[in-house]
Amino acid sequence: MGRQSNARERLLDAACELIHSRGYGSIGVAEICAKADVRKGSFYHFFESKQALTLEVIDGHWRRQRADWVSTLDGEGLERLFRDQAEAQRLSKDSGGAVNGCLLANLALELSNQDEVVRTRLEQIFDEQVDLVHGALRPGAERSTARALVAQLEGMVLFAKISNDPAVLDDLWRQARLLMT
Amino acid sequence: MGRQSNARERLLDAACELIHSRGYGSIGVAEICAKADVRKGSFYHFFESKQALTLEVIDGHWRRQRADWVSTLDGEGLERLFRDQAEAQRLSKDSGGAVNGCLLANLALELSNQDEVVRTRLEQIFDEQVDLVHGALRPGAERSTARALVAQLEGMVLFAKISNDPAVLDDLWRQARLLMT
Repeated sequence: MGRQSNARERLLDAACELIHSRGYGSIGVAEICAKADVRKGSFYHFFESKQALTLEVIDGHWRRQRADWVSTLDGEGLERLFRDQAEAQRLSKDSGGAVNGCLLANLALELSNQDEVVRTRLEQIFDEQVDLVHGALRPGAERSTARALVAQLEGMVLFAKISNDPAVLDDLWRQARLLMT
Repeated sequence: MGRQSNARERLLDAACELIHSRGYGSIGVAEICAKADVRKGSFYHFFESKQALTLEVIDGHWRRQRADWVSTLDGEGLERLFRDQAEAQRLSKDSGGAVNGCLLANLALELSNQDEVVRTRLEQIFDEQVDLVHGALRPGAERSTARALVAQLEGMVLFAKISNDPAVLDDLWRQARLLMT
């Protein structure tokens, strides 16, 4: 496989990393191409627009995350899932110097009122997240409990990002489990 | 008072409204000036930069919101405060067609990793929010409980924004109060 043959993947990887760390609005196609080492003229050969690329970034990110969630919930369960999310923010800080937060929540707050296609896709994904958590609760538990748990996770990740301190999440599970009572 | 005399206020009001509904990255100085009906050349007479304006928008927003929070917590208490936040999102949808979410959380997720000055200011404000909620809890309650409550609020507002449906927040208090057990 030559360089050009994986240019599309490189663009997706570069965009995912840039958008996760710096958001959507501040990133341009030129910067994505530079990071991916792909000529700017080639970008529109692979993607119709920055929006189209972003939708693929979202889908790719959720595909990987979803596989992790399913595997963790099938195995060690909900507490492990929550602890993994905290660990992911710690890794982000250790490797890149900053708590990047949740890619999907970042995009949701930045773009929901600007881009209906992105908003709709993110709504579907968060519905899937709630469904996965719901499936891990005791039989008969309300779906709104699962949504509250995901909300607590996202709210605490916001605090970790705003204070650029993953230790904020040390408390996450201890608080979140109260929502299941 | 002539038009020019309140140009600064008009710029702040226009920026607050635009940033709340569409985020930071997609708004330019020209658009803020157009909405405020202020000549673009005058902008830098009032503000050094878009960042300087944004910091004033943040401070002004929190000054007003803080006064509301203090008054509500001194009067009707925490449940009322949470119900008011849900009501604010309902008003946002009814008046502008979209759930705008929380201005401060929106900016936090969009800018925390891009702008250390904005991040630090938002961290201080969220600390104040947690302190206010902490002061409304029973004596001896942990500060981490107050933070979990604010996280729950922000996480559920995220869900309301992502589904563009303020009814998501009908459940907010019923879930959040479990965090106080």
